[in-house]
Amino acid sequence: MKIRQLFDYETWTYTYLIWDEITNEAAVIDSVIENAERDEKHIKELGLNITYLLETHIHADHITGAGKLRQQVGGQLVVHKNSNSECADILAEEGDIFYLGQQPIRVIHTPGHTNNDISYHIEGAVFTGDTLLVRDCGRTDFQLGNNQAMYQSITDKLFSLPEDTKVFPAHDYKGFSQSTIGEEKKFNVRVGDGKSFEDFSTIMDNLNLPNPKRIDIAVPGNMKCGLVD
Amino acid sequence: MKIRQLFDYETWTYTYLIWDEITNEAAVIDSVIENAERDEKHIKELGLNITYLLETHIHADHITGAGKLRQQVGGQLVVHKNSNSECADILAEEGDIFYLGQQPIRVIHTPGHTNNDISYHIEGAVFTGDTLLVRDCGRTDFQLGNNQAMYQSITDKLFSLPEDTKVFPAHDYKGFSQSTIGEEKKFNVRVGDGKSFEDFSTIMDNLNLPNPKRIDIAVPGNMKCGLVD
Repeated sequence: MKIRQLFDYETWTYTYLIWDEITNEAAVIDSVIENAERDEKHIKELGLNITYLLETHIHADHITGAGKLRQQVGGQLVVHKNSNSECADILAEEGDIFYLGQQPIRVIHTPGHTNNDISYHIEGAVFTGDTLLVRDCGRTDFQLGNNQAMYQSITDKLFSLPEDTKVFPAHDYKGFSQSTIGEEKKFNVRVGDGKSFEDFSTIMDNLNLPNPKRIDIAVPGNMKCGLVD
Repeated sequence: MKIRQLFDYETWTYTYLIWDEITNEAAVIDSVIENAERDEKHIKELGLNITYLLETHIHADHITGAGKLRQQVGGQLVVHKNSNSECADILAEEGDIFYLGQQPIRVIHTPGHTNNDISYHIEGAVFTGDTLLVRDCGRTDFQLGNNQAMYQSITDKLFSLPEDTKVFPAHDYKGFSQSTIGEEKKFNVRVGDGKSFEDFSTIMDNLNLPNPKRIDIAVPGNMKCGLVD
């Protein structure tokens, strides 16, 4: 599977294009509405046929470009069933598999940042949304976030993938673009190096982060697949 | 060869770590001084032995972290001979080859942005500095920049690489992280789709860009390999 990473400078969000080289069937993971035209142009230049618009969760920091891209380039819009989205085409759950050509994309339900997080696993790589970040993880203090769920999602589910699996997150704030499961097991400052749930929970309960600036428009906007004025 | 892309948010610069998986011999391409500690930590976590600190040119927009990294993690500092650097370990020229383990890094002299640009070519990928950017190219209006040299560097030298060669630039301003030679031949807005030198030169002569904010400290700082207060 080919992977192309794209970046949104305003919200530090990574969008991914992934495609099967044989059929050019492609998916967009976590698009950002302000970049929808850039992404549409890039998709067309690469000659890709968009089959799926995959969301890792209902984002609180930006409005998805998925609804707009669906109008422009097609594709079925996928979110987790816990989001109760009425505008998505597919409400996915643990174990679902989507195909680009012959290549599977497996849904791993990784709640903790929200109750509707999906990590998308392909051969050799996993797109971890706001669950597992490079040396870090998503916050757990709103949108039904939950420390216990986050710890289990990362340490039980994601850390059971092969150690050389590439990790592609939805955000980074230090200039990292990717990692591996093996690296995060060792060096993740919140869950790595065998940190206990109690250690993790103490860290998470003391982050004292302000709410994302756009949360009041992003969450309702994303419940409409970004199809808002 | 393994490739890890890192980003500097202030100057929109891409730094690359590349390494041979068998020996862990590694090179850093275009580090940024403000990120030297981040990079040093990352290098140590990955267990890499830095053999080379490769500069694509004497930068005008940021101060290199190469001198600082050389002190911290070792490695020979490489710049093009036209830079007349007195602090580098190796003054490279067209055709020089450096090895990480058994894997060659070939020096392609690609002047035009400056007179001392190097593109570093490895199996399947080329690090193009400020010469070829995604759908774009570096400016040619200072530091001995030259339209004719730039056009030849891109269309004669870089475009002669295999079309599936990945292109990793030193900067991007639209959120792109990489491209391929084949894509740039078709879609580069300045030199792609068979644009003539006259077309290219007209575009370049009408960019009317302000000088980089830090040029007055960056160029002399980089002539000292970033070893400045």
